[in-house]
Amino acid sequence: MGSTATVATRILGLDPGLRITGFGLIDQLGSQLRYVASGCIRTADGELPGRLKTLLDGVREVIATWQPDVVAVEKVFVNVNPQSTLLLGQARGAVICGAVSCDLAVSEYTALQVKQSVVGYGKAAKEQVQHMVQRLLALDASPGPDAADALACAICHAHGAHGLGARAGTRRRAGRLLG
Amino acid sequence: MGSTATVATRILGLDPGLRITGFGLIDQLGSQLRYVASGCIRTADGELPGRLKTLLDGVREVIATWQPDVVAVEKVFVNVNPQSTLLLGQARGAVICGAVSCDLAVSEYTALQVKQSVVGYGKAAKEQVQHMVQRLLALDASPGPDAADALACAICHAHGAHGLGARAGTRRRAGRLLG
Repeated sequence: MGSTATVATRILGLDPGLRITGFGLIDQLGSQLRYVASGCIRTADGELPGRLKTLLDGVREVIATWQPDVVAVEKVFVNVNPQSTLLLGQARGAVICGAVSCDLAVSEYTALQVKQSVVGYGKAAKEQVQHMVQRLLALDASPGPDAADALACAICHAHGAHGLGARAGTRRRAGRLLG
Repeated sequence: MGSTATVATRILGLDPGLRITGFGLIDQLGSQLRYVASGCIRTADGELPGRLKTLLDGVREVIATWQPDVVAVEKVFVNVNPQSTLLLGQARGAVICGAVSCDLAVSEYTALQVKQSVVGYGKAAKEQVQHMVQRLLALDASPGPDAADALACAICHAHGAHGLGARAGTRRRAGRLLG
C-alpha cells in the first residue's frame, strides 16, 4: 500500500481539559508518521473567563508556532457530575475556538476511536496508549499522559485519513504503518 | 443616590445557547440605563466546530459593531441530559471566547441573580423578565425572549456595578432606578 504523497500533512492533536489541555503535532507523509512536538497548556485557578482565554490563546500560539494543516480533537467524556461536564464543555469550546479562529478544519474523535486506532483496543489503559504512541512515533521516551492522548488523537486522524488503522489489523513498526 | 459619572458604560449582555445566543447592549450612566441594541446569533445544524465558529465570530462582530466596555454572561443551567449539558458548555465556551479574545472583562451571573435583579424574584417566568426589561429600558415593544434574557443580564450587571438592585427593594421606573 504505497503512498504517492510528497508533501507532509501536519496534524495537531488536542486533548481538552480546563486545567490541562494536551497538544501533540505529527507530520504524516503517506503511511509515514513523524513526531514534531508536544506539550500542555495549563491554566491557573481563577475566574472561568480568564482560564478560557488562556486555553484560546494557548491553542492559537501552538498553531502560530507549528503551523498545522488540520486539527483533531478528542471528544470528552460526559461526567457523572453535571457541573464538571459543564466546565469541561466550556474548556473544549475554547480549545476548538482556538483552532477554528485560525481557519483550520477540526475533526472530532471519541476516546474509543482513538484507542482503537492506536492500541487496537477501545478500552486500553492510559499506559498502553502512552506506550504505543512512543512506539509509533519512535520516541526515545514516553510522552506525558496529556501529550500522549493528544498525539494519539493526531495519529487516529492520520490513520483515518490514510485509510489504515488498527481495526484492519495492520502491523506497525515505530513511526510507520506496514500495510 | 446621585451619580457623578459623565461617561456612559456600555454593557453587552449575552445569553449563550448552541442554536440561539441572545445579545443585548445597554448604556449605563450613573443610575440611568439606555437601550442600545439587541438580537440573536443563530447557528445552522451541522458539525460542532463550525457552529462554535459561528458563535465566536458572531460575538466578535457584535463587539466590533457596538464597542461595549464590559460583558455580562448568563451562567447556564446544567441539564438533566449530560450530552446537552456538554453541548451547552461548549457553546458557552465559544461565546466567552468571543468576548475575551477582544480583551473585554467578562462577569458571570446565574439566572437566579438576573431575575432577582430585574424582576425582584428569582423564580420569575420568562414573560415577567421580558416585561420588566421592556419597562426598565422604556422600549415600545417587548424584546424577543433570547434578546430579553441577554438585556436582563446586562441590566443585572449595571445594577451590581451601581450598587443598586432589586434585593435592596429599590423602586424603579422605566429605564431608571430610583434609589
